[in-house]
Amino acid sequence: MIALLTDFGIQDPFVGIMKGVMLRINPALPPVVDLTHEISPQGIGQAAFVLKTSLSFFPEKTLFVVVVDPGVGTNRKILYIETKSFRFLIPDNGVAGMALENARLQKVIQVTNQKYFLSPLSRTFHGRDIFAPVAAHLTRGISPEKLGSALKPEELVSSPFPQAYQDSEGTWHGQIVFIDRFGNLISNLWRKTLNLEENDSVKVRIKGKTVKGFVSSYENRLSEPFAVIGSLDTVEIAMNRRSAAKFLKVKCGEEVMLQCRTCCS
Amino acid sequence: MIALLTDFGIQDPFVGIMKGVMLRINPALPPVVDLTHEISPQGIGQAAFVLKTSLSFFPEKTLFVVVVDPGVGTNRKILYIETKSFRFLIPDNGVAGMALENARLQKVIQVTNQKYFLSPLSRTFHGRDIFAPVAAHLTRGISPEKLGSALKPEELVSSPFPQAYQDSEGTWHGQIVFIDRFGNLISNLWRKTLNLEENDSVKVRIKGKTVKGFVSSYENRLSEPFAVIGSLDTVEIAMNRRSAAKFLKVKCGEEVMLQCRTCCS
Amino acid sequence: MIALLTDFGIQDPFVGIMKGVMLRINPALPPVVDLTHEISPQGIGQAAFVLKTSLSFFPEKTLFVVVVDPGVGTNRKILYIETKSFRFLIPDNGVAGMALENARLQKVIQVTNQKYFLSPLSRTFHGRDIFAPVAAHLTRGISPEKLGSALKPEELVSSPFPQAYQDSEGTWHGQIVFIDRFGNLISNLWRKTLNLEENDSVKVRIKGKTVKGFVSSYENRLSEPFAVIGSLDTVEIAMNRRSAAKFLKVKCGEEVMLQCRTCCS
Repeated sequence: MIALLTDFGIQDPFVGIMKGVMLRINPALPPVVDLTHEISPQGIGQAAFVLKTSLSFFPEKTLFVVVVDPGVGTNRKILYIETKSFRFLIPDNGVAGMALENARLQKVIQVTNQKYFLSPLSRTFHGRDIFAPVAAHLTRGISPEKLGSALKPEELVSSPFPQAYQDSEGTWHGQIVFIDRFGNLISNLWRKTLNLEENDSVKVRIKGKTVKGFVSSYENRLSEPFAVIGSLDTVEIAMNRRSAAKFLKVKCGEEVMLQCRTCCS
Repeated sequence: MIALLTDFGIQDPFVGIMKGVMLRINPALPPVVDLTHEISPQGIGQAAFVLKTSLSFFPEKTLFVVVVDPGVGTNRKILYIETKSFRFLIPDNGVAGMALENARLQKVIQVTNQKYFLSPLSRTFHGRDIFAPVAAHLTRGISPEKLGSALKPEELVSSPFPQAYQDSEGTWHGQIVFIDRFGNLISNLWRKTLNLEENDSVKVRIKGKTVKGFVSSYENRLSEPFAVIGSLDTVEIAMNRRSAAKFLKVKCGEEVMLQCRTCCS
Repeated sequence: MIALLTDFGIQDPFVGIMKGVMLRINPALPPVVDLTHEISPQGIGQAAFVLKTSLSFFPEKTLFVVVVDPGVGTNRKILYIETKSFRFLIPDNGVAGMALENARLQKVIQVTNQKYFLSPLSRTFHGRDIFAPVAAHLTRGISPEKLGSALKPEELVSSPFPQAYQDSEGTWHGQIVFIDRFGNLISNLWRKTLNLEENDSVKVRIKGKTVKGFVSSYENRLSEPFAVIGSLDTVEIAMNRRSAAKFLKVKCGEEVMLQCRTCCS
């Protein structure tokens, strides 16, 4: 199957046109799932976060087609990447570097073979002219090697995901990297990295306020923001049936600090 | 087929992830139709209205997967329900009670069998961890009885849809329960309940204003709001190529009164 | 396959209901692609522009179902149209006239046969009651002639797309006809009509400002708006990672002028 991740929005016909192109090349196209098209325009970090946290829920061999591509029309590369479990068609602008930072890249190919592009090739809509037709040809079984030459993984644009760090007093410093529709503030304090458990007693601070943690679900009696280990396996700050983002007036990038009183250090 | 109804929005990748989970469990998944994902966060009444008015247009045996679930992570139940025509996977929070208030529930099962859930199970994203995998297993033909124990219909959370009533002078009092994209004000004055006909002469009042009714289509010469029997089979207040909601400054919950001059009472 | 183009938005369940109706009539429905549902309410010109610029990327014989239909419930006609490459189900309100102005219409049929409609027929939701069921019946192979009587192409509502014109001094005058998500201003100065090349030197004026053109991609060093020949094959005014629409405070309909210094005239 194919999963689409773009910043095209759904107001314009761009995503629909990409699907038209794919179906013209492969009338027996496998299912196409819209991961989201509402990445902020040119939001590379946001796209990487969505990709990183969504990946493992998709079937093996899913082809992720990522068109968040502020460099369209320049000489930025377009990549075909294979890991053990998944395949990617993605611009070389850091999204792959961030989303796959811990994965072994088994194959990296620079997509250059115009035989699989639309012609004429526009300078501004490679989603339609390159990504869609190449994806459709891949679902028809062409060998990825036909797309272009192999690259070494270390040749990719490296743009590491913003990392949380621990200061000399043991406090973790991270940041809000995603705010979902409900106003939940999702941080880059990954449960695994910090070695957290849901019954740990922690002190979480954001914008000068301390929030209680960890709370076991959104349905508690608190009228203040609280911290949970969220479904994306990171520390989230949430509220009961309200937007923590609005209540705390927090935007992406805001620092969040965590002290764990019960963690083994 | 499957119909999805959630409050996840389409900005976040949550719906896409649910589809990934379903396709991983059933690569031959039947068509999945998005009914809407833009239910207001935790909008139980709105979800019930959408479900109630959409149902009859779907194929027999459609599985409606409803994830409007403010109680996620608490001990609220998750239900599998069968009526004569449809199947539902739905939290026990009143949506089913409202949407199916006149239907005979042939089967009600409390979904508890973790064999069909994702593991580990998060506390906050049961759409991904319970609803999606259980739905996918159902499309593979597992017997609903395997999901858990039967409940009696009267054990469901009952949350009757707000009802219109008739006062001693014969005037119906209802409320606006849905406002669509065009700003049409959709009430809970159901044509069948009030025994209305399109050629009845009625006096409709909202926010102290009287609106003409019934008018036979949106394309008339009126520059004022007017009442129609809408496509959802209830009384709607609409305007020509304008938003009645903005013109009258009406929100959901506003009272609407109707006097019928020609109805047999 | 089917491509849907409506002004229903995705907040309301209207599009989902249309798909339910189609699947009830044809359980083996071919793929349905959402071109966009976010046409401004009753935005006939916008719908025509989207249709005109999207068409050629879809597979041959695609059935475009267009429900941008302010005249719903009046005696406006509903048309089935066939061109050499595509099929359309579309209200007779000018969208077809604009989008297909240069195409030869091989078949035009006024859709009147209630046998293929839902019953009862509402006055306000023909997307559900006429367009969806007729489209589904067409995918099951019914002969279009069964839908109603043939019309002559010249009987259609004619509503020509706003045309650019050249004044006596050789300056082209067009207008902005579409603004995409990124704030790019898309004009009706079609490359082919003006006989433009990407290396032409042009002077483009909008809102009293002159913008540089043509620039070869969005990724240049300019901090001012610039003109490109866009992916829809018309002159666009864009900015680097910013919205030209917001920067210039331009809305649809704004005049844009182009002088070509290098074109053969």
